[in-house]
This record gives sequence, structure tokens and C-alpha cells, in this order.
Amino acid sequence: MSAPLRVAIAGLGTVGVGTVTLLGRQQGLIEQRAGRPIIVTAVSSRDRAKDRGIDLSGLAWFDDAAEMAASVEADVVVELIGGSEGIARATAEAAINHGRHLVTANKALLAIHGAELAAAAEAASLALGFEAAVAGGIPIIKSVREGLAANRLSQVTGILNGTCNYILTAMRESGRDFAEVLAEAQALGYAEVDPSFDVDGIDTAHKLAILTSLAFGTRVAFDKLHIEGIRHVSALDIRFAEELGYRIKLLGIARRTEAGIEQRVHPCMVPIGSSIGRVDGVFNAVVAEGDFIGRCLFEGRGAGAGPTASAVAADLIDIAAGRFGPPFGIKTASLADLVPVPMSEHRGAYYVRLMVLDHPGVFADIATALRDEDVSMEAVLQHGRAPGETVPVVMTMHNTKESSMIRALERIQTLAAVVEPPRLIRIENF
Amino acid sequence: MSAPLRVAIAGLGTVGVGTVTLLGRQQGLIEQRAGRPIIVTAVSSRDRAKDRGIDLSGLAWFDDAAEMAASVEADVVVELIGGSEGIARATAEAAINHGRHLVTANKALLAIHGAELAAAAEAASLALGFEAAVAGGIPIIKSVREGLAANRLSQVTGILNGTCNYILTAMRESGRDFAEVLAEAQALGYAEVDPSFDVDGIDTAHKLAILTSLAFGTRVAFDKLHIEGIRHVSALDIRFAEELGYRIKLLGIARRTEAGIEQRVHPCMVPIGSSIGRVDGVFNAVVAEGDFIGRCLFEGRGAGAGPTASAVAADLIDIAAGRFGPPFGIKTASLADLVPVPMSEHRGAYYVRLMVLDHPGVFADIATALRDEDVSMEAVLQHGRAPGETVPVVMTMHNTKESSMIRALERIQTLAAVVEPPRLIRIENF
Repeated sequence: MSAPLRVAIAGLGTVGVGTVTLLGRQQGLIEQRAGRPIIVTAVSSRDRAKDRGIDLSGLAWFDDAAEMAASVEADVVVELIGGSEGIARATAEAAINHGRHLVTANKALLAIHGAELAAAAEAASLALGFEAAVAGGIPIIKSVREGLAANRLSQVTGILNGTCNYILTAMRESGRDFAEVLAEAQALGYAEVDPSFDVDGIDTAHKLAILTSLAFGTRVAFDKLHIEGIRHVSALDIRFAEELGYRIKLLGIARRTEAGIEQRVHPCMVPIGSSIGRVDGVFNAVVAEGDFIGRCLFEGRGAGAGPTASAVAADLIDIAAGRFGPPFGIKTASLADLVPVPMSEHRGAYYVRLMVLDHPGVFADIATALRDEDVSMEAVLQHGRAPGETVPVVMTMHNTKESSMIRALERIQTLAAVVEPPRLIRIENF
Repeated sequence: MSAPLRVAIAGLGTVGVGTVTLLGRQQGLIEQRAGRPIIVTAVSSRDRAKDRGIDLSGLAWFDDAAEMAASVEADVVVELIGGSEGIARATAEAAINHGRHLVTANKALLAIHGAELAAAAEAASLALGFEAAVAGGIPIIKSVREGLAANRLSQVTGILNGTCNYILTAMRESGRDFAEVLAEAQALGYAEVDPSFDVDGIDTAHKLAILTSLAFGTRVAFDKLHIEGIRHVSALDIRFAEELGYRIKLLGIARRTEAGIEQRVHPCMVPIGSSIGRVDGVFNAVVAEGDFIGRCLFEGRGAGAGPTASAVAADLIDIAAGRFGPPFGIKTASLADLVPVPMSEHRGAYYVRLMVLDHPGVFADIATALRDEDVSMEAVLQHGRAPGETVPVVMTMHNTKESSMIRALERIQTLAAVVEPPRLIRIENF
């Protein structure tokens, strides 16, 4: 056990540089905890000339990460390139095909090809570590796979994208609208120039697909996810949420129901006083619920060089110590096909905001549409009256079927007095 | 890997019965996740006749747990008796001496004899699992030992005793005093008939001693802990805390400083808005802070049959899967001796409440005593005036040395107008 674990790092962006830094700075501590040294022997990146502020002398350099994965003298390849296809996928496959353990922070790759990669790693008795792919530094993969392993889980829910949580928090604190806060986040480097992966919920969905597989023993099924982002969340809705006692969060929710597994990403109203409602800014959080453990919350930094490198290194320490099993917790061949519950079958609580020309009789038309579609209103919020002007009308419903809710809103939208498309935000009562 | 892992359970109290129940009910799921079945083959308890509501037929029965540990046909002994000495200790030692893995929920045993037990287990290549000993179902042992293993931790802080947190929460919500709420908690079964282990902070201290060892790679050093309980927390102090923006929690705090390691258990004021300040009722929470991961919070149920059995079973699954290493994360021989920082050297913020006869000049005497001992006041709170009567005067100090604070209070206590011993509660600004 005293031979060093040799590591090749594919990708020298923020996380790659962070990982090289961490493995250097924590050498002594890691050797104690892993039972042997962990050393970087090779790196790969396209631009060799770039100054990254770290010392790469003495390391083998590869311009091509997949070539490195195939031929390098290393026991583990750490894939930090990103993206579900192309060079990242080729690197991951080459590592396993050539008998090297794989550690990756690549949620897109795992959400799309996780089950095949796991099967290949397992067949070759190799580790596939992906702690860094979900919720950054929070050890949520290990916790769900091992810490809660004696539980039948009923749900895993998370704030999994720090960019969205930052934007929603800043919108609430400043009262500004999405576009303005996004622009600021981009200027500060908290959001990408192309923010779509984050704000349209895709990144959250990738991470949720991985958690679902771990939690329920199902094959990763990204194609069976319902995904909505936060572009339509308005400052107005955030204010109404506050008034109703809620915070708006982009959640990834995986829930076991009698009909199958719900897997959905969308903005949610959650109670202000709930654990998850109070997670603000760039922080991530995951709530897991099991039959013996009850509810458990994990909160921490979901992104950034330090937390992500911490998760990568935790996987490397486990590999060095020989502590690894099937990547998704059970034999890949035993993973069940996920039976999805269509979103139309979802039952839950809803917040609806209409923009309405305030004149007599409008509300009766709205109420009729709801009644006809079997939607029962819980509360209505309308501030003052402004005859002849456009005013927001906010309603909440409880225990309503999604398909009925949608049909009712389709009818309501045809009313002449309803001047904008209705806004719907689901309520999750934690 | 398909031979079952055979388990002998020592102690059939709430947790023992919960563990037998869990291992029965989750058989299929556990076999998948452990890679082989986990079966109970033997149990021990003093009273064989008692109806525990579970089926024990077919299991070997032992009246003497230590005898079972020595002679049973089992791979693992689960010690759920409790107490640092006597039969619990004899059982733990017998298990290891006879080549059986040991899993235990016994924090007292580990806080006092953890390092020796770990050395014995390690020497025999056996597992010593104690996830259930700290924070119930929260996988905090695994998270600190493995999930955060790439970090140099600066602190671990926790609400580690559900009874105390329940009492403090109920006191705040009802405005009642300690004795009354304790009596109610005892009637409800949330507190023991002899509540001393809980309310005097000893249980928290046991758990903290274990976390300290894991976090800092030091030998468990229960004798180097500063311990205060919650008996002196009054409804009045809880109200003042609220007014100042704080909640009162019993915290276990282990912190690395330049002078050594602070290890202390005492009531703290923490900001109402902080993650840990919002953990109420029987819930536990642990905050860990590392140089790469930043701050990470874990929250969940800290006691009860279900959560504790969940933790016991997680250890069993790890053992069945062959995933275990040195019990405290590094080789027991490498654990350093803990260099404690004496409480008198602690620097921090303080809340002080005096009961004072309201007459002219009193405050000048108090201020003089503080100034002479180099204690600088941050704020004073006194509601209204009541000449000639006894009134509370509340002060907060920041960045003050404990020894100076104590000396100042000793002087203040000698003033004729100060009619009760001053109350001091440390403030932790999370």
C-alpha cells in the first residue's frame, strides 16, 4: 500500500488547477489519510504556453487528453474537461479501456452516459468517482451511496446550481428583475457568457439525474426529466412569494411515488422558514429523506476551484485506500429502468399569477374556469382595486393535478380581461 | 463476496431493537448495496422474557454480552449497551480480541477508550465502526473522515444533543424556565429520569471528543475538554438573546488555533439567521470548515431508533463491502497528542447579565471593573429605570480574553449593588 497513486489530470481550467494545487499543498495530510502518497504525474490541456500560476515542471504534458488517458503512466485519470461528448467522453472511455480508474466532475457526461461508464468500470474492477459532479464540495454522493445506504429513500431534493441560487437571492434582495441581475452576475463572473446551461435548468437536471440513480437504484435517465429554468421568474413573483411566506428556489426534485419516480427541475416556492428555503447565494443544499433516517440536510459550496478540488481529491483518497465499489452503489446490471411519472400526473400545490383588467365579473370567469377543471383555490391575493387598469391577481391552489391546472390556465388565458400569459410556480411544502 | 456477513447484537434497548428491525425489513436493499446479505445470528440482553415486539426465534441468545462477543459465530459484534466501562467495554474488547469487527453507538466508550480500541482493531485488521455514536443518522463520521479528507479542517462545531436542543427550543417558544421544561421533556420521554449526561453537557462532550480526533488527527482526549451544561440558561437570557439577534444553543466546538486545539462544550449565543441558529427541536447539526471546501453543514435527527439503526447499518454495509480503514481516518499510531488551549486563553465575544439594584453610580463601578481588567464593552441593554429595585443589565463584549472576562466578573460580583452572580454566555459569530 505504500506505492504512490499516480494521477493524470485532463483539463487545466479552474478545477484542474485547483486539483493540482490541492494535491501539492495537502501532500502530507493526504498520504496519512490515503495510506500512501497521491502524486500527479501528467496533465493535459490544449494550451501549453498559458501561465496558470502553478508549477507543472516534471509532469508529462499531453496536448490530447484521450491520448493521455490511453497511454499515460498513471493509475487514475481525472477528467475535468466537461461536456457529455467529444474529447471528454473519449478521455473517460480511454481511461477505463486502458485499465485506469476514472474520477470526473463532469455531470453532463454522467447524466448521459453514466450507466455505460459505470458498467465498463465495474467490469474492469475500476473505480468511477464523481463526487465533484454534484453539489461541489458537499460529500453528497458518498452520503447517499454509503451513509444512507440502509434506507429506502423517498426523495432527494436539491438546490444544485449556485448561479441560479445567486441570481434568485440577488433578485429578492434588490427587487430587480432577472435580466438585470443576470447581467450583473455575468460581469462578476458568477454566470457564464452563455448562461443557458445554468439558468435553463440543464445543469441542475444533469446533477439530479445522477442523484436519482444513486437514491433509487435506477439507471441514469436524463431523458425522463421535466426541466424548467428561472428566466420567467419575475421580481413581482418574488415579492408575492415573500408575502405568502415563501422563497423561490430552483429545485431538482426526485421523488418515489406509487406510480413511479418523479424527476423534475423547476422554480419552486418553499416556506421561508424551511431549511432549504434559507439556503442563499452561491450555496447548494440537498435534502434526502429515508424510511429510517428521516430527513437529512447537507449544505455547502456547490462550485468553485476549492470545493470541487476537495471532492475530486476525496475520490482519489478512496481509490488510493482501496475503498470503492459499484459507482452507483449497486451492481450496474442490477440498476432498474426508471419508470417516470409524467408531469401531467403530478399532484401538488400551485401559485398562479394573472395580469387582469380590473373590471366587474372578471373574477367570476376565472373562478368558473377553475371549478370546471376541478381546481380548488386555497387563497387569493389582490391589493386594492384599480378599475379599468391592469392588476396582478395571485391565487394558490393545493392538492391539484398538474393536467387540470394546465387546462384551467389555458381556459383562463382565453379570457379577454387576462392580458398576459398566466405565470405558474409550483409550491413544495417542506 | 456472497457469504453473508453475520452480526451479533449486544443490547436490545431501543436502538438494538431498531437495528434488528432494520436489518430484517431492508434485507433485499442491503444485500444489493453491500454486495452480500447481512444477517443477525445472535443477540444478547439480560432479560430474555421481555416482549420487544420483534421476532428473535432462530437467533442464538446470550445473557452475557461479553461471552457472546468471545464465542459467537458472527463476523461483527454490534455493541449497543452503553457506558464507558463494565460490560460494554468488556464486550467491545472481547469482540476485537476474538477477531470480530466491532460496530458501536457508544460515545462514552469511544470518548474514553477510543484510541486503544482503534489500535487493537487496526492491529487485527478489523473494522471499528461508530457512525451511530455521533449525531444519530447524520453520516458525519464518514463525511469528516472520508468526504472532507482532502481538507485541513479549522473547526468542527455541532449541536450534538437533541435533548438539550429540544429543551432550549421549548424554553424559547414557551417563555418558560429550564426546570419546568425539563420536567415536561421527562414526562414526554425526551429526557432521561437522570438527565445529567444530557443537560450537563457530558453527552455532547463525548461526541465532540470523537469528532475532534477525526477532524484533527489527534488522539481522543475527553479529559482535555471544557464542559458546561444548560442548567443555568434562563428564560430571561433567552429573551435578551432574541432581542440582540441571537439564539442560545448548546454547542460542542473544536477549533484549531495557533496555540493548539480548543475543545469546549457550553451554551452559546449564535446569530438567529445562521444555519446552526435555525436548527431547532430534537435535530442535530454539525458545521465543518476546511481550507478547500469552506463551510459545510450537516443536519438531521440525532437520536431515536430509526436514525441510529440507519447509522449502525451503514457501518455494517461498509464492513460487508470491505470498505474500511483506520477507525479515526489515519493510522492510530500516527494520531498526535492533542495540545489543548486552556479555556482561560480563549478569546471571543461575551454576553453578560447582571442583576443590579438600580441606583446612581452603579454603572460607573461596573464600567471601572471592566476597564481595569481590559474588557471593552460593545453594547449595554437596560430597559427603563426602576430606582431602588433590582433590574437586569445586559452587556456584550467582543474580542475579549476569557481570563480577563472572569476576573472582571469576580470584581463586579463583589459590588454591593450586584445582587446575583453574573451570568455569562459566550457568543459565537457564525
